[in-house]
Amino acid sequence: MASFQEATHAKAIELVRLSIDMTTAAGSGHPTSAASLAHLVTVLMYAHMRYDPATPDAASADRLVLSEGHACPIVYAAAADLGIAIGRDRRRRMTRDDALRLREIDSEIDGHPNPAEGFPFFPAATGSLGQGLSVAAGLALAARLDRSSKRIFCLMGDGESREGQIWEALDFLVDEALSAVCPIFNCNRFGQSDAVSRQQSAETTAAKLAATGYDVRTIDGHDPQAIRDVLREHAERSGGGAPPLAVVARTVKGWGFPSAQGAGHHGKPLSSEQRERAFAELDATARDVGARWSEGVLEIPAAPDEPAPVVEPAVTLPPLDEALRRFGLESALEKRKLAPRRAYGIALRVLGHADKRVVALDGDVKNSTYAEDFASDPQLAPRFFECRIAEQNMISAAAGLAVAGKVPFASSFGKFVTRAYDQLEMALITGCNLKIMGSHTGVSLAADGPSQMALADVAFFRAYSEVRGRDGRSTMYVLNPADGYAAYALTLAMAAHEGACYLRYFRPDVPFLYGYGAQARFELGGHAVLRRGRDLLLVASGYLVHEARRACDELAARGIEATLLDLYSLPFDGRAVAALADEHAGRVLTVADDYGGSFGSAVADAIAAHGVPARVEQLLVRCIPKSCRTPDDVLRALGLSAHDVVESALRLVGATRGKSVGDAV
Amino acid sequence: MASFQEATHAKAIELVRLSIDMTTAAGSGHPTSAASLAHLVTVLMYAHMRYDPATPDAASADRLVLSEGHACPIVYAAAADLGIAIGRDRRRRMTRDDALRLREIDSEIDGHPNPAEGFPFFPAATGSLGQGLSVAAGLALAARLDRSSKRIFCLMGDGESREGQIWEALDFLVDEALSAVCPIFNCNRFGQSDAVSRQQSAETTAAKLAATGYDVRTIDGHDPQAIRDVLREHAERSGGGAPPLAVVARTVKGWGFPSAQGAGHHGKPLSSEQRERAFAELDATARDVGARWSEGVLEIPAAPDEPAPVVEPAVTLPPLDEALRRFGLESALEKRKLAPRRAYGIALRVLGHADKRVVALDGDVKNSTYAEDFASDPQLAPRFFECRIAEQNMISAAAGLAVAGKVPFASSFGKFVTRAYDQLEMALITGCNLKIMGSHTGVSLAADGPSQMALADVAFFRAYSEVRGRDGRSTMYVLNPADGYAAYALTLAMAAHEGACYLRYFRPDVPFLYGYGAQARFELGGHAVLRRGRDLLLVASGYLVHEARRACDELAARGIEATLLDLYSLPFDGRAVAALADEHAGRVLTVADDYGGSFGSAVADAIAAHGVPARVEQLLVRCIPKSCRTPDDVLRALGLSAHDVVESALRLVGATRGKSVGDAV
Repeated sequence: MASFQEATHAKAIELVRLSIDMTTAAGSGHPTSAASLAHLVTVLMYAHMRYDPATPDAASADRLVLSEGHACPIVYAAAADLGIAIGRDRRRRMTRDDALRLREIDSEIDGHPNPAEGFPFFPAATGSLGQGLSVAAGLALAARLDRSSKRIFCLMGDGESREGQIWEALDFLVDEALSAVCPIFNCNRFGQSDAVSRQQSAETTAAKLAATGYDVRTIDGHDPQAIRDVLREHAERSGGGAPPLAVVARTVKGWGFPSAQGAGHHGKPLSSEQRERAFAELDATARDVGARWSEGVLEIPAAPDEPAPVVEPAVTLPPLDEALRRFGLESALEKRKLAPRRAYGIALRVLGHADKRVVALDGDVKNSTYAEDFASDPQLAPRFFECRIAEQNMISAAAGLAVAGKVPFASSFGKFVTRAYDQLEMALITGCNLKIMGSHTGVSLAADGPSQMALADVAFFRAYSEVRGRDGRSTMYVLNPADGYAAYALTLAMAAHEGACYLRYFRPDVPFLYGYGAQARFELGGHAVLRRGRDLLLVASGYLVHEARRACDELAARGIEATLLDLYSLPFDGRAVAALADEHAGRVLTVADDYGGSFGSAVADAIAAHGVPARVEQLLVRCIPKSCRTPDDVLRALGLSAHDVVESALRLVGATRGKSVGDAV
Repeated sequence: MASFQEATHAKAIELVRLSIDMTTAAGSGHPTSAASLAHLVTVLMYAHMRYDPATPDAASADRLVLSEGHACPIVYAAAADLGIAIGRDRRRRMTRDDALRLREIDSEIDGHPNPAEGFPFFPAATGSLGQGLSVAAGLALAARLDRSSKRIFCLMGDGESREGQIWEALDFLVDEALSAVCPIFNCNRFGQSDAVSRQQSAETTAAKLAATGYDVRTIDGHDPQAIRDVLREHAERSGGGAPPLAVVARTVKGWGFPSAQGAGHHGKPLSSEQRERAFAELDATARDVGARWSEGVLEIPAAPDEPAPVVEPAVTLPPLDEALRRFGLESALEKRKLAPRRAYGIALRVLGHADKRVVALDGDVKNSTYAEDFASDPQLAPRFFECRIAEQNMISAAAGLAVAGKVPFASSFGKFVTRAYDQLEMALITGCNLKIMGSHTGVSLAADGPSQMALADVAFFRAYSEVRGRDGRSTMYVLNPADGYAAYALTLAMAAHEGACYLRYFRPDVPFLYGYGAQARFELGGHAVLRRGRDLLLVASGYLVHEARRACDELAARGIEATLLDLYSLPFDGRAVAALADEHAGRVLTVADDYGGSFGSAVADAIAAHGVPARVEQLLVRCIPKSCRTPDDVLRALGLSAHDVVESALRLVGATRGKSVGDAV
């Protein structure tokens, strides 16, 4: 019988061969990166990770996050050999033929890790670099909440470790004492276009990790025994106290076939001649290292026998007034005003008590976003994660929590969420049930100025609001409540929806527009008509609904009756809005404190898509704002005050009165 | 005469008082953060930095980047005391009265550092955290190119140093041996909502810095002599070899007035009672530390006497065919096809030779983006900066280069640029002349799958394309060339424009649509009519212009004549496009490989804004794509092939033939 060393070498070489074949068949891909991980992946997937190939995403199974996603062929090769379950709607065991269909249009084996296409062994989509360790952190947080002894392995590239997010994640793992995560740095010395910097060498990486609080083990990443030893050491410490372990593995890009080693081979499949040469080299390598396969030497340990977390039945949630009373905030009812952010704090607390899956994350602004209502509730505090000033890690960690079945609400200033848009996109590719809360959006925060104002956020998220998932629903709902009641109701609606949402909410206190009982119904994709008129359709969103209301009063005093629509959701019922435009002779004025391409534009789109003749004027933010002492100052400066709305409405009605719209070009 | 120690304490306390008064007057701001920097700022601005208060942004002047932007009142206080020049259109010396107008609507003294509003002492807008050190790196790169001995000081918060970008910047400074930069960590132990993590303590930060390659000096940040000594040590080493110096300063948040120290005081101005108490405490502190002011003890050293870099006159740039021949790429002319990315490489090289201000940055994908054409040209190589896999640092460093008068072209995959959207927004607030190149955009890269595809990029950048600067021009031009000629011409047009641009370019080779001489004219804000018809208006952008062309042929064969517009710019002449829609009975079909809210939506917006009755149908990407082996596979799967364009056009023409558009709601 072969030794562990011999069998691992044999299997690693077999997987390298298949990685080469897969990428050659696909005509693209990363065979040399794959080869650098051959032994690490072999030991992990054949002899260390505890899982059942038929259910690689079982609740108690160990997980592998391949942060350097382009190296995926090596994992696919192992999955094909092991018959790991694949398939989107119906699962089957993966075969070598499946592997050779890498990157085909109807293949589950996507170019980079992508569980949503049917490869559940990977917990998350990766491929945009630097994000995997944060996802692993989220998985580990969930495991701890679920009292699972699950371990999570994260493979990162050396070039990749230049991404600051990895160092955010490393700090976070220490803060949260997440020793179940095993960070493994694959130091193969080459990036895409060049050798990696000395700053990313194995030595410097090890020194940085030690300074960050890790017990570092630097190993030969092609030595099966060394890999097994370090993973066993990790297993012994997993779940225990600090300091956590980190592995720096020295590896060879293109291990086993020297003709493709060194610079210039990144992301290049081999031609058939190159393949032939590589295979001959792999034969020689097999002889050199003494590769010898026997069945039974490598064995996958079973997943821990742990009960899956039970999802408890939904409970009825109280209306806002009741919730305010419950948490001692009746004063808002007397004052008849409430900032949406306060309503969010209450809603999050209500949700936390109603559903154990609800968790919250924040980036050192919980006293501004009001996530602190959740954090400071003793019953909920264990489910709150302070991510500090590191938004990228926060969003990817939230994605990891979502993958593990939690319902994460991640909050920061909307402006700072911008920092994690790439992380968010990856979470959307994964299909995460993620709730993003962007506070202090728009211009009403005034005094802090443009560095703190989210204005392009709507345009970015709108793009995803128009992307549909397989269920026909939006990949992302964008919600922009105008008052505390709407913020409360929409936060509850977000939680009830299985999918990603972004709720943007502003800073100031505002009067209730919708009462505070259960009068008005708010739903994803909805809108509310606040006032009925006949002369023009005024579509407002968020803070500017209040200005629009004042404008309606003033217009009414001048004999002009406007219909006022509170457009609090993207997407919305475009047909209904187009029909309303039609009822108002195509006179449409939109008002929102965002940049172009946002709410107003979505209205114009819907009307144009339905072919309704209309003139759609948009009031929005047309220059980069500056600091002002009050929201009124900034609205006046930007031409977004009630007065400006009135002026625009008068011009619009005047320009189109007595003639049909649309002869002005 | 007072000692340096005594005078510095006296001045620091005076500045703390004014910081308190400013924020109390504004009703918002961060007096306690300001106080933690009192001595560091006093020594820097009164006794160490070499500059003239009348021209703080002179080419040879030392610069201060306040990365923790919210602490700005302390710098404003010093500027008011020193009479540093302020003003947007006309400069004057700042006064105490100016300082007390902090955050007023017409004040140059913005809530966070914002040179664009008229405070030129700050090189860049900050306030979204973690970005300043990268900006400092860019300033230092420019100084080195300009042979300036200028030094750049960067003040960062301890909580802020959780942002991974700072560690990207620290690696970059070592890689580039930018010892002119002095990174100073202000360890005042408190973030906004809580004490900072132990991971951000002075000790851990010092250990991490040492591991990263720095000579670390940990000092008492309120000891004037210690500050002076470490800054002098930095000055001696500035411009010399590694290892660079980094300063970890232990400070007190709310230094001098204990009633506002500790947690719970972040970002809170003092009430008049609190102010009174604080002032009394500051009196006591002044006695304790032996504060004593004398004129003449602190003196600002003059800026180095160095010639400002000379801007050379523009030279005539060759047309593409000539450029291709010059650089040995005639084969493209024979093949009659060229990938836009190859055209970019050529254009960048042409620009580099024509204009010494042109510099290039890339994030380890220069062989994909073709920035390597520039990097591997021996004459240009010194102006190329390999930023490795760290996009945030790359974009902020590019902003620093732009501030210093360079014309930076920063390239990566468009998808990875997403990672730096917040950094880009800050650069736009600063008003940087920055060129962002996003390669591999859209879906035509196919095989690598969605983790590498930029699709929401258009929606995000479009938001800024609709924001206008003071000159009435767009804050950001978005350019989406359809062929190699357009990519070449638009890259040259970007360089000629003083302002920010984003050029997105796809991967595949495509035939020339516009020849390759100087036939067609491409300009920011332009569009091109490729074909004239009468039955419908087909608006296409980027790679899909080629599908649209094929569709036009097929439609013509069926007796339908389409006008084909290549919409390669945002913004564009909305009136002209609306008029074209009108000429085609309002039948408009848009085609682009982006998500909603992008090119098609901009067309709908323009038409609706001009009140032209129309039905605008948009063909775009409506689900998250997956990997496919060829661009044709992915276009078919997404319903964006020429065939799909034909089908949609037939439906649109059929639905609206014989009746006016717009009665379908």
